[in-house]
Amino acid sequence: MLILGLDPGSTRTGYGLIESQGGRLRALAYGVIQPPRDTPFLERLPHVARQLEDLVRRSRPDAVAAEDIFLARNTRVALKLGHVRGAALLPILSAGIPVHEYAARLVKKAVTGFGGAEKEQVCRMVMMLLGVRDPIRILDASDALAVAICHAHARPGLPGRGAARA
Amino acid sequence: MLILGLDPGSTRTGYGLIESQGGRLRALAYGVIQPPRDTPFLERLPHVARQLEDLVRRSRPDAVAAEDIFLARNTRVALKLGHVRGAALLPILSAGIPVHEYAARLVKKAVTGFGGAEKEQVCRMVMMLLGVRDPIRILDASDALAVAICHAHARPGLPGRGAARA
Repeated sequence: MLILGLDPGSTRTGYGLIESQGGRLRALAYGVIQPPRDTPFLERLPHVARQLEDLVRRSRPDAVAAEDIFLARNTRVALKLGHVRGAALLPILSAGIPVHEYAARLVKKAVTGFGGAEKEQVCRMVMMLLGVRDPIRILDASDALAVAICHAHARPGLPGRGAARA
Repeated sequence: MLILGLDPGSTRTGYGLIESQGGRLRALAYGVIQPPRDTPFLERLPHVARQLEDLVRRSRPDAVAAEDIFLARNTRVALKLGHVRGAALLPILSAGIPVHEYAARLVKKAVTGFGGAEKEQVCRMVMMLLGVRDPIRILDASDALAVAICHAHARPGLPGRGAARA
């Protein structure tokens, strides 16, 4: 089973594709989508959407997992984040791929055993769980891999938000 | 010149297509895009995007105008609104149609002469300015027509946020 984890942010969107087979996990691809720094905000949306559309077409994931965000510093930040998240999820929803959302604490707990873990701890555990040797330098990418791992570990009855299918 | 005005909201998205020719304005189409009430939130996004993609393909507007939102009741509402707005604008930005954003007060002022006007006042003035006889019963649609009118009236130097082109 191929799971694509996503961590959409207002400046960059982390992604991580993993394969889960018989309880064994491995990383197939990970990285960040980051439009050039001076790209006006609205133009960032089709940039992110196009890259994800490509990624989904090439990798054909069985499911997409994303952090279920409902906290943000303020409404302005929340609006921006919402725009990017909407644009990032749209090609996935339009392709009929189910999107599963998990609360941040649940993702951290699934990966490190502790819901309040720091991003660096999450990163180290992600590398260990997936057998990645080269350091993952971008924490948005390890966060994306983490939510994919969380979905791989999820069993019916786990308090994920369930799937939304277009 | 064809201008499509948009008023994306978390439950429904108003749209209004107007023609501006030699200073004269007329309404070509208006309404709301509203997924069935029980549609899960994420599934609403491709619904709205598909409808707008259709509308844009059929009407080929020269420009799209939308209210520049940066206020919301709280971060949760802002996140939802951001998702819908991102999904609604994506097919437009992807088609390379410039999106112009205008502050709500500016839209109300352009239509009624008063930046603090009520939605009902805006609706009455929209009907008058566009020569619409049948009452526009859905205020999301008249708000969308209002922002299109605002763009039609806009001249270089006006404090709109300018265009974003994908």
